[in-house]
Amino acid sequence: MNNFSITAAYTDLYQISMGQVYFLSGKANDKVVFDYFFRKIPYKGGYVVFAGLGTLLEVLQDFRFDNSDIEFLSSLKLHPDYLAELKKFRFRGDIFSVSEGEVVFPNEPIISVHGTMLEVQLAETMLLNLVNFQSLIATKAARIKQVAVSRILSDFGLRRAQGVGGYHATRAAIIGGFQSTSNVKAAMDLNIPVVGTMAHSYIQSFDDELQAFRTFAQHKPDNVVLLIDTYDTLRSGLPNAIKVAKEMEADGKRLKGIRLDSGDLAYLSRECRKMLNDAGLDYVTITVSNQLDEYVIKSLLDQSASIDIFGVGTSVVTGPPDAALDGVYKLAFAGGQPRIKLSDNPAKVTLPGVKTVYRALDTNSGKFAADTIALADEGLPKVMYHPSDPERSFRIDNFQLDGLRGKVMSQGAIIHNPLSLAAISAFATQRLSLLPDEHKRFENPHIYKVGLTESLIALRDKLRKQHKAK
Amino acid sequence: MNNFSITAAYTDLYQISMGQVYFLSGKANDKVVFDYFFRKIPYKGGYVVFAGLGTLLEVLQDFRFDNSDIEFLSSLKLHPDYLAELKKFRFRGDIFSVSEGEVVFPNEPIISVHGTMLEVQLAETMLLNLVNFQSLIATKAARIKQVAVSRILSDFGLRRAQGVGGYHATRAAIIGGFQSTSNVKAAMDLNIPVVGTMAHSYIQSFDDELQAFRTFAQHKPDNVVLLIDTYDTLRSGLPNAIKVAKEMEADGKRLKGIRLDSGDLAYLSRECRKMLNDAGLDYVTITVSNQLDEYVIKSLLDQSASIDIFGVGTSVVTGPPDAALDGVYKLAFAGGQPRIKLSDNPAKVTLPGVKTVYRALDTNSGKFAADTIALADEGLPKVMYHPSDPERSFRIDNFQLDGLRGKVMSQGAIIHNPLSLAAISAFATQRLSLLPDEHKRFENPHIYKVGLTESLIALRDKLRKQHKAK
Repeated sequence: MNNFSITAAYTDLYQISMGQVYFLSGKANDKVVFDYFFRKIPYKGGYVVFAGLGTLLEVLQDFRFDNSDIEFLSSLKLHPDYLAELKKFRFRGDIFSVSEGEVVFPNEPIISVHGTMLEVQLAETMLLNLVNFQSLIATKAARIKQVAVSRILSDFGLRRAQGVGGYHATRAAIIGGFQSTSNVKAAMDLNIPVVGTMAHSYIQSFDDELQAFRTFAQHKPDNVVLLIDTYDTLRSGLPNAIKVAKEMEADGKRLKGIRLDSGDLAYLSRECRKMLNDAGLDYVTITVSNQLDEYVIKSLLDQSASIDIFGVGTSVVTGPPDAALDGVYKLAFAGGQPRIKLSDNPAKVTLPGVKTVYRALDTNSGKFAADTIALADEGLPKVMYHPSDPERSFRIDNFQLDGLRGKVMSQGAIIHNPLSLAAISAFATQRLSLLPDEHKRFENPHIYKVGLTESLIALRDKLRKQHKAK
Repeated sequence: MNNFSITAAYTDLYQISMGQVYFLSGKANDKVVFDYFFRKIPYKGGYVVFAGLGTLLEVLQDFRFDNSDIEFLSSLKLHPDYLAELKKFRFRGDIFSVSEGEVVFPNEPIISVHGTMLEVQLAETMLLNLVNFQSLIATKAARIKQVAVSRILSDFGLRRAQGVGGYHATRAAIIGGFQSTSNVKAAMDLNIPVVGTMAHSYIQSFDDELQAFRTFAQHKPDNVVLLIDTYDTLRSGLPNAIKVAKEMEADGKRLKGIRLDSGDLAYLSRECRKMLNDAGLDYVTITVSNQLDEYVIKSLLDQSASIDIFGVGTSVVTGPPDAALDGVYKLAFAGGQPRIKLSDNPAKVTLPGVKTVYRALDTNSGKFAADTIALADEGLPKVMYHPSDPERSFRIDNFQLDGLRGKVMSQGAIIHNPLSLAAISAFATQRLSLLPDEHKRFENPHIYKVGLTESLIALRDKLRKQHKAK
């Protein structure tokens, strides 16, 4: 694959198969609503940063089968009338969604897709694929940002990304709080600051480290960052870097920084800072890289490491130890009726009907207090109830209640101009700042309250009874 | 992103920066060799299945900056002469590689890229990105195949894949031993059998499960697989499926299978098999899905689960608990000299020079016995030595020695017609069958021997001494 486009064939075959059955049985144009939500917060954490919406809307606006897709589908023994329908297929649904960058919690309908059965079903796989991944990565990036605080975070992960998934990983890392990337392609398309230093191979290709540094400083006009750990960090790399920095000063230029990629980063960074300052080079920054994640960064800073920039690779582009957000896309309304999916596991029973989400803000602290899932056509809720224990309720009429979702796509067209990535990232930072700290700690975070309204519970329980009666 | 192409801008900025320094300092056309190898086998396993080579060669054959890349690069204050060079840049190097699908081990130079400093450096990020990921996934798939033995494995993972990385995940899953995929796009481009069943939402969209099944059987001409766990697997789903299967028989058709996606899959599959057989439906297959990986599948089969097809999602497309293969790309030769990278960690010292790899086959058992890394210009080795303990040696002159690598690209052109994915997959299966079982077990696998020749050790130690003397 040199060229890749996300067409409507970016899906699971069963969507196409079900589509044929809907089409031939006269259900393809039934009005339906599907909800996107997740059940489990990754990293045993207390929040998820929602990301991927911008990509999703962009793809949906031009979602169709191209000629080669249709040619392939004709080989699958589809009914000719259905094939003709797929040929002219466009996504013309409406989408209600939480804003990209928002802090979200389990079971909330983050996105609801309204449209015909055929179009809403054909959008499923792509939606899940893009949003599950970007939300995982934005959440990981936000956790890293939480510990790095004001230090600069840069994505260095493309070489360890899951193939071309690295492209959207960079997008999501920025939403979660990273400031820059080494990924040229993503930087170019998404207008992200692009950064880079040098590889060990560059140093090795010279007979002499000092000569390698000098040559680099000579031929790179700005942002010269020297990698100092190829041979011996404190006895060779750093003294050579200081020598070159002084030569650059004599030349009216400034060394931007040094980078450490191995060894004891806490100790080495402190030593480097001291030696640089002693040489009058307090302006030279220290970048570190090498298997960093939120825990390593926290440990480095706890040891008073002197680091200005963290270059994070694998952990921010792939999000380990979790590999995926478990987001799902479930039918909530069809044929004029709310729909439910039962399960032996009560936590897996879906919430029926057309819904919305309110966030309660504590007007004293200005912080988030709780979210309430409500039916879209009921008024502002006053009380919310625990999803599985209706004896537990929580009054929300003393709080400021904000609707968390808005209409973002109308009949297949994006309603607002897309926000810049920088704006989405700023929004994420601002929203995270409103989430109380107890939900943000890494160890046993306090569970953020998400409740249901009385009407929603009543509807769910009524449908549950009806199905059990059958 | 709707459209995405892997151009030369699919890289880290530092490659472009180093390129400018090489270009302006007259080193851009120096002949160099870089080796691709990994250090650690994922999953605490005993082998890696090498994958991604076909994708890599296809991309490299047309590797260039397109107009929008050049436009973006001009905004980065690059030297105009260098920019002009990038504009006409093509990859024209030679590549020596192990065959795709081969079983490989740590520290072996799996791929060596020979060319000018500029072209070899500019290829690095893309090579690592594609090969690290596909090798991780092919390895995971092979482990799953190992326990599933003759049962069919199908990739159902696109919705949980790491964004568009899901495309190459499917490719690699097939190499590792999967037979089919739900991913329409990948199936179409890569000629993979595509399969699918139905979703819970399909059942929910009808008032009645039986009606949902009947409608499906009516409008899907073949390969009808009914999902039977939406309401109650044994009391509703299966009886309804049996009813429809009998109606299909009356109609001269056959139900292909049923699918289970929740509950106790071992118990349910056994019960379903019994009830199906009692109804004279022994030809109806049982597919299961839901959070499967090699350990869950092993446990199911240990419990005598009656399963024909496993639909595997997250675990095969993302490869947890590991997120990335740690493959690196290191300079081995430049400026007419072998090159080494030192490290405080002896395991991280690189192997210098132009090398190759031999595999010793035990002619009695026909199985793999050991691999030897040698200098390319020495003869067939007779003895190999432990990489860090030269006192430990292993005679290999009683074995059949096969060169493991061949030239696959000459001056930027692919030498052989690419193998089909099916052929690569068959090769992987065959090669894995030659690896003794003790290297394939999941718990503490026996470490496969990879040794060095005396000449390679001598070269490494000489260069190490030279650097330390400086």
